[in-house]
Amino acid sequence: MIVVLKTGASKAQINAVIREVQKLGYRPHPIRGVERTVVAAIGDERVHHTLETLASMSGVDQVMPVQRRYKLASREAHPAGSVVRVRGVPFGGRDFPVIAGPCSVESEKQVMETARVVKAAGARLLRGGAFKPRTSPYEFQGLKQEGLEILAAARAATGLGIVTEVLSERDVDLVARHADMLQIGARNAQNFALLVAAAESGKPILLKRGLSMRVEEWLFSAEYVLSRGNPNVILCERGVRTFETLTRNTLDLGAVALAKTETHLPVIVDPSQGAGRADLVNAMSRGAVAVGADGLIIEVHPDPRVAMSDGAQQVTPVQFGHLMRGLAPFLKAAGRRLA
Amino acid sequence: MIVVLKTGASKAQINAVIREVQKLGYRPHPIRGVERTVVAAIGDERVHHTLETLASMSGVDQVMPVQRRYKLASREAHPAGSVVRVRGVPFGGRDFPVIAGPCSVESEKQVMETARVVKAAGARLLRGGAFKPRTSPYEFQGLKQEGLEILAAARAATGLGIVTEVLSERDVDLVARHADMLQIGARNAQNFALLVAAAESGKPILLKRGLSMRVEEWLFSAEYVLSRGNPNVILCERGVRTFETLTRNTLDLGAVALAKTETHLPVIVDPSQGAGRADLVNAMSRGAVAVGADGLIIEVHPDPRVAMSDGAQQVTPVQFGHLMRGLAPFLKAAGRRLA
Amino acid sequence: MIVVLKTGASKAQINAVIREVQKLGYRPHPIRGVERTVVAAIGDERVHHTLETLASMSGVDQVMPVQRRYKLASREAHPAGSVVRVRGVPFGGRDFPVIAGPCSVESEKQVMETARVVKAAGARLLRGGAFKPRTSPYEFQGLKQEGLEILAAARAATGLGIVTEVLSERDVDLVARHADMLQIGARNAQNFALLVAAAESGKPILLKRGLSMRVEEWLFSAEYVLSRGNPNVILCERGVRTFETLTRNTLDLGAVALAKTETHLPVIVDPSQGAGRADLVNAMSRGAVAVGADGLIIEVHPDPRVAMSDGAQQVTPVQFGHLMRGLAPFLKAAGRRLA
Amino acid sequence: MIVVLKTGASKAQINAVIREVQKLGYRPHPIRGVERTVVAAIGDERVHHTLETLASMSGVDQVMPVQRRYKLASREAHPAGSVVRVRGVPFGGRDFPVIAGPCSVESEKQVMETARVVKAAGARLLRGGAFKPRTSPYEFQGLKQEGLEILAAARAATGLGIVTEVLSERDVDLVARHADMLQIGARNAQNFALLVAAAESGKPILLKRGLSMRVEEWLFSAEYVLSRGNPNVILCERGVRTFETLTRNTLDLGAVALAKTETHLPVIVDPSQGAGRADLVNAMSRGAVAVGADGLIIEVHPDPRVAMSDGAQQVTPVQFGHLMRGLAPFLKAAGRRLA
Repeated sequence: MIVVLKTGASKAQINAVIREVQKLGYRPHPIRGVERTVVAAIGDERVHHTLETLASMSGVDQVMPVQRRYKLASREAHPAGSVVRVRGVPFGGRDFPVIAGPCSVESEKQVMETARVVKAAGARLLRGGAFKPRTSPYEFQGLKQEGLEILAAARAATGLGIVTEVLSERDVDLVARHADMLQIGARNAQNFALLVAAAESGKPILLKRGLSMRVEEWLFSAEYVLSRGNPNVILCERGVRTFETLTRNTLDLGAVALAKTETHLPVIVDPSQGAGRADLVNAMSRGAVAVGADGLIIEVHPDPRVAMSDGAQQVTPVQFGHLMRGLAPFLKAAGRRLA
Repeated sequence: MIVVLKTGASKAQINAVIREVQKLGYRPHPIRGVERTVVAAIGDERVHHTLETLASMSGVDQVMPVQRRYKLASREAHPAGSVVRVRGVPFGGRDFPVIAGPCSVESEKQVMETARVVKAAGARLLRGGAFKPRTSPYEFQGLKQEGLEILAAARAATGLGIVTEVLSERDVDLVARHADMLQIGARNAQNFALLVAAAESGKPILLKRGLSMRVEEWLFSAEYVLSRGNPNVILCERGVRTFETLTRNTLDLGAVALAKTETHLPVIVDPSQGAGRADLVNAMSRGAVAVGADGLIIEVHPDPRVAMSDGAQQVTPVQFGHLMRGLAPFLKAAGRRLA
Repeated sequence: MIVVLKTGASKAQINAVIREVQKLGYRPHPIRGVERTVVAAIGDERVHHTLETLASMSGVDQVMPVQRRYKLASREAHPAGSVVRVRGVPFGGRDFPVIAGPCSVESEKQVMETARVVKAAGARLLRGGAFKPRTSPYEFQGLKQEGLEILAAARAATGLGIVTEVLSERDVDLVARHADMLQIGARNAQNFALLVAAAESGKPILLKRGLSMRVEEWLFSAEYVLSRGNPNVILCERGVRTFETLTRNTLDLGAVALAKTETHLPVIVDPSQGAGRADLVNAMSRGAVAVGADGLIIEVHPDPRVAMSDGAQQVTPVQFGHLMRGLAPFLKAAGRRLA
Repeated sequence: MIVVLKTGASKAQINAVIREVQKLGYRPHPIRGVERTVVAAIGDERVHHTLETLASMSGVDQVMPVQRRYKLASREAHPAGSVVRVRGVPFGGRDFPVIAGPCSVESEKQVMETARVVKAAGARLLRGGAFKPRTSPYEFQGLKQEGLEILAAARAATGLGIVTEVLSERDVDLVARHADMLQIGARNAQNFALLVAAAESGKPILLKRGLSMRVEEWLFSAEYVLSRGNPNVILCERGVRTFETLTRNTLDLGAVALAKTETHLPVIVDPSQGAGRADLVNAMSRGAVAVGADGLIIEVHPDPRVAMSDGAQQVTPVQFGHLMRGLAPFLKAAGRRLA
């Protein structure tokens, strides 16, 4: 860490900082500049007490960390990209798997129909919400266990692995019995208790980025899973919150490229949540391929007009087929393949 | 709801919208403007299916809700402000209670010492984190049960009621046995499973605003608690995330005034988290009084330099005493009183 | 416009709103809902006084516009995409032109060398800042007129048209004499006086998006140029400001797709400013092609280490050549061509 | 500056950085940590070339400045607060002046009437827009010169000094002939050409904060004025742009307290723009006093329903009188006085 003193800090103040740095387990290295003194603190920031508390000392202007503090998620420590397999489908290698299905599981008929068409169009895994995180307690909260059973039936019928969200620590076992990958949603991206419980299920984790999460924080949330001995984390960019009002979120495709420089974990994109508008899903999916994403998760509904959640962002089976066909040349350009 | 059609929408598209509005339980009322048609949908938006899904229909430009969708939290339905009592201390009336204590519970000595000084300075409740939500899994996670017991001992010694955060559904019972109010932190502000579990403990809930939460969403999270039969919710503004880098968060005092026009629930302010800098806590506290907040929660540590979390934002006992004395004339100006 | 009254608004309040709507030139159309009354105001929102002022009336909850208020920039009025030519180079059609060159013009040698290499790599226009907008008055402000003359000499030597920023109304004539397209920078995106002055030069305008500009506001700024009789506006997405700290800006590729649904004007992308990091420019450029951008503007410097501005985001000639070659398969996938 | 190398940077890479630091005028001071090397660069960052360009070197992870780079605006260099006088009215001392008047100048009658009532209620200066920055070119752009003459007439009649916005370098002389303080609006907060032109008029400058401006950037914009020899800058917080949709902006009262720790310049607050809602102006004004602002600028209109701009945020004369009376106890608490 680097402790920057204020202009005009006294000798006594500087010495107090040096003593405190030592007390907290670092080797202090003061450097006198033309106007300010800085004290470099030598030591591993990940095993010692943080020095950020020194910001409360008189004479201190700011404290700046110099290390990346995540370890297991970091590409520095693992230069090669990791491949995470979900029911045999590999994320992070040359393959570019697409996960598709309805926002919410609404009925067996809806899910079966969607599963068949998305499989035919090239999707490798089926998504569908059985437990739905809803801003309002009065909105449809999902079919819960019944929804999980419908998803499992769709897997039996089509062979597609299942990706579904878990909202409660208490439901982790139940969801893990039915699903092939557990999704942690954006609103729970820093629900550390849920992250740990999900990690301990042993299932692969799809970790959505929080609504205003820095990439560093996203990787720390992944680190919560990894440090529990579960190496199978797939990150999912799904848009961040900004001032724009014509879209629900601002899909941050740049964060995909950035995250891939920082971590060896696979990163996929959710263009449905990311834009919140069905008419932008196609362009966003192509963009995801081009910036280096490792897959997509797309909401598809047989009839979005009557969807029980997020109808505005779900594409129809016809639109999904069109999207998948249009993706092919971009995948080729990126040296990737659908299957 | 108001469904706005695109310029040049065809008669067939308009009729399809009208039929769909009817099918979803509303009475359609089309209005032909100079350039566009809009269809007003008459019916209670809180009991019918949302029409936002119609945004996926061809010819539809946007769908705009006109009702506030929260009920129990809404001031429209409850014009008078509510008073929430925590171990006898009233929030939301003429009293202006201050909650104070360390960010983390670190030791019995630290908590006892802090409890005594904050009580002497006028605080009415003691705060302290036993379970700590930390961005990194490698940071201090709190003393957990031992921390709760230390807090309870401090209550026994000083009479101050206890406010502490709960991070996991599984810990709700444990925390509720020791605490007088359960805090839901910013990162869990839309962890609906935790909100419901905490609500069902019957304890008052201190609901912090999420990092990029709209006021409407905050009230919906409150509604999750209220709709479970627990009327005792206190909202807490603690800063939102912006582009500013000199402070950790941007304390949104305007949201306090705004929230109080929308809801009858008490709203307090956390200037410690809100600014993330001890040197701004005093000014922010005065601002909170002036904009109409119903109380404060302030982090106080006997020696912030060695704090195990967030040392940069905790004030010393001396600074806290100074702050409380300086608050008095502002409370008087606002027609409030400390005790 | 739609005027939404408060729950419980009195008959007198509703009648006052109806009278005011009439007085301001609209035909009022009241609709009584289950809980609230709304008054639809029929009339062209672009020629009558706005009704937003009614929000100040007692009994009014909110006022919602239903029309797009821009005309000339709107795709509704001009469904086909426009092609804007800059010294013969077409933007907005099948061609995908790349503009390249240094952030700042520093010397004739630097510009000549850069111009030759970017031309050889396939760039169609040369960029370079002669007037530099700098956050600090103590930073390098550009070579000004000398810089313009260097750019003109580079055009004479290579045939590449010149794109350069104008910062002051007073410099519009000078810059227009030397440049083939005038750039309005992000910080001046709502400097309406400069927009009008630049429009009146008759030169094509490259309009960068402001740091926290909504797409609607961007199109209004374009409308300032178009409504002065200058139809040649190219929009440029260059990143918006968010909470992320690992990049300088958050490049909003989704806004490119969104803008192209709203407007017929060409939209290009600046991945250099957008990311602020040379190592992300390549991925961002590919993403821009895939989401449907109509071109790129990229900063290239012979030796970024000694650049007088923004060295961290400029690529070397070797990196630029690599980027251009790597773009080819993505352009083919998108049905576009470099030249 | 501190140059942080990547983990595993080679000896050759470290040496290249050291050479470059020297070449750019700094004295390099390498420090080998447990995992990374950092190179402290000793020298005045305000007179040497920035080292941020080194971020483009291989082996470099990041470059961190340690100095505040503004000089004249900095409180470090000028610990005592400055007092700026506008037609004799002092900002920055014990006095707390209120500037009031309509958003736009609409007619002589409207301005005269408003001037008289705001003066009677205790305002010290009159505001009013003669040149209006409007998002859309089709909205009312102000009465321009006629508006300035109306303002001057109101000054003659009431003795109140005039504060009005200037939008164009070409209008600086005209506006300076009529006004006592020139306002630079939020959209021009980084229009450096206008800042310089306004500075050179010799008039005091009211510098509004940009829509998503960091405090550091705001002070740099002030530095543009100060470094032209005009010491009379008053900063004005007017809300920043966030994700909240119930208010037009998010008034950042914390930034007032923060700015006052960083600069000696007076800082005032615009609660009308800041909230965009007349019903929040009163609470925001009290908050401004409490956090340490040096004055207010408030929009007052005889009849906001028919205002030609921003009717929703203007208060009536009656509301303004009420506001001013209610401010008195808060001013007393803060040790300030209205006049």
